Amino acid sequence: MSGAPSTGPRPISRDTRLCISLAGRPGHFGTRFHNFLYAELGLDFIYKAFTTSDLGAAIGGVRALGIRGCAVSMPFKEACIGFLDELTPSAAAIGSVNTIVNDDGFLRAYNTDYLAVRQLIEEYRLAPDTPFALRGSGGMGKAVASAFRDAGFTRGVIVARNEHAGRALAQGCGYDWRAGLGDLRPALLINVTPIGMAGGSEAAELAFPAPAVAAAETIFDVVALPTETPLICAGRAAGKQVITGAEVAARQALEQFVLYTGVRPSAGQVQRAAEFARSG
Amino acid sequence: MSGAPSTGPRPISRDTRLCISLAGRPGHFGTRFHNFLYAELGLDFIYKAFTTSDLGAAIGGVRALGIRGCAVSMPFKEACIGFLDELTPSAAAIGSVNTIVNDDGFLRAYNTDYLAVRQLIEEYRLAPDTPFALRGSGGMGKAVASAFRDAGFTRGVIVARNEHAGRALAQGCGYDWRAGLGDLRPALLINVTPIGMAGGSEAAELAFPAPAVAAAETIFDVVALPTETPLICAGRAAGKQVITGAEVAARQALEQFVLYTGVRPSAGQVQRAAEFARSG
Repeated sequence: MSGAPSTGPRPISRDTRLCISLAGRPGHFGTRFHNFLYAELGLDFIYKAFTTSDLGAAIGGVRALGIRGCAVSMPFKEACIGFLDELTPSAAAIGSVNTIVNDDGFLRAYNTDYLAVRQLIEEYRLAPDTPFALRGSGGMGKAVASAFRDAGFTRGVIVARNEHAGRALAQGCGYDWRAGLGDLRPALLINVTPIGMAGGSEAAELAFPAPAVAAAETIFDVVALPTETPLICAGRAAGKQVITGAEVAARQALEQFVLYTGVRPSAGQVQRAAEFARSG
Repeated sequence: MSGAPSTGPRPISRDTRLCISLAGRPGHFGTRFHNFLYAELGLDFIYKAFTTSDLGAAIGGVRALGIRGCAVSMPFKEACIGFLDELTPSAAAIGSVNTIVNDDGFLRAYNTDYLAVRQLIEEYRLAPDTPFALRGSGGMGKAVASAFRDAGFTRGVIVARNEHAGRALAQGCGYDWRAGLGDLRPALLINVTPIGMAGGSEAAELAFPAPAVAAAETIFDVVALPTETPLICAGRAAGKQVITGAEVAARQALEQFVLYTGVRPSAGQVQRAAEFARSG
């Protein structure tokens, strides 16, 4: 199997630690990403995705069974909060949890989407005075907008058809709201809607109009499947700096991995794990 | 690794099914036995032992996470009953559960220790009119005594120092109770106490006096670690028919395996799985 781990999985024993995910519709990425790295690093862990129709009982089970870590996806990211013991700043900042760490029955919550975006802002040296437009107003929009706010970005516009959600998100971050981009031509365009996502009704659409892409310097699309969304393709074709959803997905999964295991894999290991995870 | 499965474990995916065990002090046997057979048969399952300090939440988690099966060991075999949806006859007969099967959130309980002993009575062609003494009065004693009762054995004596528990068990099965074997010399001797168990305070002791072993035809010891208890060794040395705890352990685990997966491995596969599990 191309890109498969070099050492192979350890046999499961009674002492093997379990990490899981909870999602309305579990994907493949997390299970493949984490198990790849466990095998690669020889860690006595296993990872598996779950769904549930009883979130409280599922999280009670995480606690009672000593499940070490639990990733939380839609639609559970806010609903889970009442079942947890502590929100760390990354989760408290946005009122949204995507990672639970269980220390002897104490459940501590994080948001590694937020942490991943903060990392990408640093890595790509995005300047805080850059004007940007962020399209979207859902839970991930909140994580991304909050990360930009907390990185010192002040010149932001939230573009969202849903006025109520859009205004709430904008006000929470000190940004403006608009229903559409109009004639704005900011240097940084950020898509946090499902536009361009495989299987969606808008898979072939561009999240921002072509003239706005042409006028921008950096294109950031949070959609990870596919990595090459129409927006990313248009940005690449025009020679723009692009930041893909795959980078967000890999970084947030890496931060979960570090929180669960205490081990930080090398950049090369993370890249191979992410490629392996996406190939499934 | 000697005796390791031929095909190797499948990679874990989001669709992999999880089975677990809940025990006060988790052992190695179940995890090794089940995972060996999953790999051997190419089944997309994983198995792992857990403990808990909150049994209700743990079983709620089994239900909410869609964990397919859950083995139950000491001290949870009776305490779990209030959290389940249905007791099948094997569990209802003795008021003790060692196996939970989860069908879409409906938790059905079995006692495969009882089923294993019923099987062994048939396989060894033990005749229902055989007089026997059963030493012990705990949960496993109840499973074994009930299996003999339900197989038609009427001439039983429960030997137990604890008069209250011993009398209750004897009365429930229509047998007599005695504090000690005395001058009884039954054809079948059954040990269901920890006497002879590795690491216990009575590891080197014989569960029945030597003259009783000499007078018996069949020696049945439920202790599985080690398989060759002092009682089994004495029985073998005297040329008696012996039935070991390893046979109970393998058969009860096999019945769990069939209930969880719907697949019945061959006798050879079960034997290799049990040998592999014991070697860990």
